[in-house]
Amino acid sequence: MKARVHVTLKKGVLDPQGQAIAHALGTLGFAGVGDVRQGKYIEIELAETDRATARARVEKMCAQLLANPVIEDYAIEIAE
Amino acid sequence: MKARVHVTLKKGVLDPQGQAIAHALGTLGFAGVGDVRQGKYIEIELAETDRATARARVEKMCAQLLANPVIEDYAIEIAE
Repeated sequence: MKARVHVTLKKGVLDPQGQAIAHALGTLGFAGVGDVRQGKYIEIELAETDRATARARVEKMCAQLLANPVIEDYAIEIAE
Repeated sequence: MKARVHVTLKKGVLDPQGQAIAHALGTLGFAGVGDVRQGKYIEIELAETDRATARARVEKMCAQLLANPVIEDYAIEIAE
């Protein structure tokens, strides 16, 4: 079973990486680019076969390691 | 219009960040964790209103700035 996790900065938290991308796109001549936000995308292979259990474990992984819940949100998708 | 871009390392390219996560998860007591891969997730606000044009521009942004096409793949989703 595979879990896909998106970790993104919460709304209102300054995102210097995103700002750097927006600035670089402007420099490269891309007009009409507004806000850019950069987050992390993590794919995890799990031996677990039950979807609900897999999701619960990945929740725990996010809370303990993958995300900083003070400034980051996370979203979990469980795929086959 | 909003574009969501996933930039991931190509299959076969070593992913030390992913390996570090897998190792850390093991240390924290999470068993049954297989391969872990880490990529980037980028959200871009665009002034563009035509989906096809928006996608073409984001393709160009990926090729020129957001991804390294030698070792990375990218996937683009265009949302409202």
